[in-house]
Amino acid sequence: TELNVFQNFDPKIPVSYLNTPHLFLANIDPDLQLRVLEKMKKPKLVGCDTMNLWINTKRASLEKLLKKVDIFFLNEGEARLLTGEKNLIKAGKMILNMGPRGLIIKKGEHGAILMTSKTLFVSPAFPLEKVVDPTGAGDCFAGGFFSSLVKSGKYWDEKSLRQSVIYGTLMASFNVESFSLDRLKKVSMKEIQARFKKFQLHTHVPV
Amino acid sequence: TELNVFQNFDPKIPVSYLNTPHLFLANIDPDLQLRVLEKMKKPKLVGCDTMNLWINTKRASLEKLLKKVDIFFLNEGEARLLTGEKNLIKAGKMILNMGPRGLIIKKGEHGAILMTSKTLFVSPAFPLEKVVDPTGAGDCFAGGFFSSLVKSGKYWDEKSLRQSVIYGTLMASFNVESFSLDRLKKVSMKEIQARFKKFQLHTHVPV
Repeated sequence: TELNVFQNFDPKIPVSYLNTPHLFLANIDPDLQLRVLEKMKKPKLVGCDTMNLWINTKRASLEKLLKKVDIFFLNEGEARLLTGEKNLIKAGKMILNMGPRGLIIKKGEHGAILMTSKTLFVSPAFPLEKVVDPTGAGDCFAGGFFSSLVKSGKYWDEKSLRQSVIYGTLMASFNVESFSLDRLKKVSMKEIQARFKKFQLHTHVPV
Repeated sequence: TELNVFQNFDPKIPVSYLNTPHLFLANIDPDLQLRVLEKMKKPKLVGCDTMNLWINTKRASLEKLLKKVDIFFLNEGEARLLTGEKNLIKAGKMILNMGPRGLIIKKGEHGAILMTSKTLFVSPAFPLEKVVDPTGAGDCFAGGFFSSLVKSGKYWDEKSLRQSVIYGTLMASFNVESFSLDRLKKVSMKEIQARFKKFQLHTHVPV
């Protein structure tokens, strides 16, 4: 991993941002994530992401952070690395015990798992024939998830949480269809809703 | 791959089996699968499985077989090997063009994909904390799928196909919970139906 511009990054937060009620700490050195979190004035919902580098080199800081966030996003490899447990459901329970109330384990083309102490929701990814570039898919997932959840106004409602996983999934699916932000810049709310319907079509289990 | 007892296997089919209406040709040399199929008298529904060994060493026979089966089961690695295509949806379409009307791509803990020319159904696996031995999961999937589909009496009905994927998933999930047939021998229809409900609980997407 080459940190490049993040090597000596020390985020300066504009004063107008300090009252932001919903905070997503994207993947970066957990010491920086903690510093940003400490500067914020009482956010109502805090999410974070991480990566293998920090799990291997900054575990203590990451564990400190996990006690302070509401929703933790990581991928399946990271979940296994963090816990030493191969089974993702077991690993998820171990991670929930580290602090976050909600956990999302991202599995790329295989979908995602949402866990809280009460919820276990497994979702496939949106089936795509065209995958150009997976860069940023995880951040798009988190963005779609967060905005859906915040819009619902009910952070811990089962229905809102599940729908938000799907919106995260869909935003990631648009993102990987092109390089950079090319597809995301153009996507409309109408297209997102149409893909939600298509997702239901491809995943519906008849009773 | 060590073929062991299958090295010189030449199946002898009891006369009483020749009228079997539903035939599943489990993974074995495609020449043997073809020979068995030729002996049978007009089966109504034929499925088959295969593996990397036959894709690499008996492709011509496998391709001949695929023109004669209705439903083809293989895992994601095999689908990629058979087609040279990494994207599973694209690979699936290429495989459907090889002959079978229905295709199931098995992804182990990540679920399964069902494809026909009209259908694309993606399903997660049943989330399990206890996985003891994955041996035989694919055959259990095929068994659960086939028996559900045959029971429905409507082989190409969208609802029957999807439900059958779930029953395949569930039978595989029971199988991996213990060694050999230990769990399967004990499982009751009541337990299977209860797990179907649980599956729906863990996968339901609210509108």
